[in-house]
Amino acid sequence: MAGDRTDLDVPSGARAAIETPAAGDPRLSRLSLNQKTVDRLDLPAAVDLCARHGIPSIGLWREPVTEYGVAAAAKLVRDAGLRVSSLCRGGFLTAEDREGFRAAIQANQRAILEAAELGTDTLVMVVGGLPAGSRDLPGARERVADAIAELAPFAAGHGVRLALEPMHPMFCADRGVLSTVDEAVAMAAPHPASAVGVVIDTYHVWWDPTVAAAIGAAGARIASFQVCDWMVPLPADALLGRGMMGDGHIDFRALRGMVDGAGYTGDIEVEIFNADVWAADPDATAATVKRRYVSEVW
Amino acid sequence: MAGDRTDLDVPSGARAAIETPAAGDPRLSRLSLNQKTVDRLDLPAAVDLCARHGIPSIGLWREPVTEYGVAAAAKLVRDAGLRVSSLCRGGFLTAEDREGFRAAIQANQRAILEAAELGTDTLVMVVGGLPAGSRDLPGARERVADAIAELAPFAAGHGVRLALEPMHPMFCADRGVLSTVDEAVAMAAPHPASAVGVVIDTYHVWWDPTVAAAIGAAGARIASFQVCDWMVPLPADALLGRGMMGDGHIDFRALRGMVDGAGYTGDIEVEIFNADVWAADPDATAATVKRRYVSEVW
Repeated sequence: MAGDRTDLDVPSGARAAIETPAAGDPRLSRLSLNQKTVDRLDLPAAVDLCARHGIPSIGLWREPVTEYGVAAAAKLVRDAGLRVSSLCRGGFLTAEDREGFRAAIQANQRAILEAAELGTDTLVMVVGGLPAGSRDLPGARERVADAIAELAPFAAGHGVRLALEPMHPMFCADRGVLSTVDEAVAMAAPHPASAVGVVIDTYHVWWDPTVAAAIGAAGARIASFQVCDWMVPLPADALLGRGMMGDGHIDFRALRGMVDGAGYTGDIEVEIFNADVWAADPDATAATVKRRYVSEVW
Repeated sequence: MAGDRTDLDVPSGARAAIETPAAGDPRLSRLSLNQKTVDRLDLPAAVDLCARHGIPSIGLWREPVTEYGVAAAAKLVRDAGLRVSSLCRGGFLTAEDREGFRAAIQANQRAILEAAELGTDTLVMVVGGLPAGSRDLPGARERVADAIAELAPFAAGHGVRLALEPMHPMFCADRGVLSTVDEAVAMAAPHPASAVGVVIDTYHVWWDPTVAAAIGAAGARIASFQVCDWMVPLPADALLGRGMMGDGHIDFRALRGMVDGAGYTGDIEVEIFNADVWAADPDATAATVKRRYVSEVW
């Protein structure tokens, strides 16, 4: 099969390009731009980009936020009139040693406080992979469950929901031992839905033959809906394989229908890790995101 | 996390290296070497390698077999006293156009005849990914089911079982739209177990949180058990990430326990796609395969 290509103008599929929706277009009312999609911009520039392009919500990452200052970042986003759809990311809860585990709990408590200060109720949790040399996948999953049980009341007390992100199984060993929506929902189940939810990221879950039923069962647990496309072949760095919606093999409208059907009405966050997208002019990227969001997702 | 390394002598884990088991060691009685593991050897050299090292079974690939001649290959393997654990591979059944679909059916009928002539009852089926530009994953899965329904009686009539291989979800778009053991078993279910079975390949299924139950439910459908390890990070070519058992993150004894518990008593096939292994001296590889098989799998 020929490889899919990244093109900021025309989707790889046969669909015609559409006009770039103007700021205020009601179809954009739930659109959020995850700041990783414009990775080369600093926080003020990313916020300004969203404001200028009429993208009403932004997904933030801890590193640039803490570098800028959490209070200052909160003010910056608020003054620009943007919502914060989520903070990425807590997690990495699989350390085998007690010290590492305690350090992870504390780091996540800080992340919860940051999310609260930023005015978002959604902390995306990438739960962590297997420790070096470990073959104990059930054990790692148990430690994540233990950590969530400890963190959930703290999060709820600060009005923040831990959003467990099932990661694509190719990241199971090194990034996230939660691999399916069903598994994330089961891990969230012992806790109130207001304290622990799940992320539905098209890139991570599109392949799952049980995804429709799993999203239906997730219902009010759905805390975040993220979109980007799956392109072939995988690039040398598998982390950077995420494509602009329309350039790959994911049926976004089908997945959005499932998430809608489950009752989710929150922001829809575009999060793309892709060297070509990162190299592009951020204004061009923002315009493409709006077009593709409307033509492929909305 | 530091990357896992390929070392033909010492497992990356803390386990001690063991002596290389001699030919005739009863622990090797179910060991099969998939010829892809020694990719640079031609068919006679691969057969000779197995015979010299006391590896009693071999997994063959269609391309080298047809190049050598099917009848001659059958005689070669038989004269060496080896079993043929499987023939790789049929499949690629997802073409959208009628012509492409018919061509795939015919190619698979030829593969079934080759398997029968080689004296193996197991044809491994890599079912195929999404056609270029397609986003219709359910449609592709339906076409595979249709093709299996057409091929199953033909296979059974020649004493061959179609062994559906669930592929790691990272290959869903470009190689195999069957992603889980449960899904493969469900697709096999309408057909006699003697006509359609499933492959349990540790590399493809290790991450699945439901794998224990799925393998239990597979029971007599299990037609092949293949082993290799999952190493991090993924290499630039994701196809070549498969490691020697013991170098990565898979708990082979746990998976073997599940497969044993399901009643599988057939060959256990070592199939490793890895540039470092391919570059090594094949005699060293064969010795390592025997040691690791005994220390990690048996």
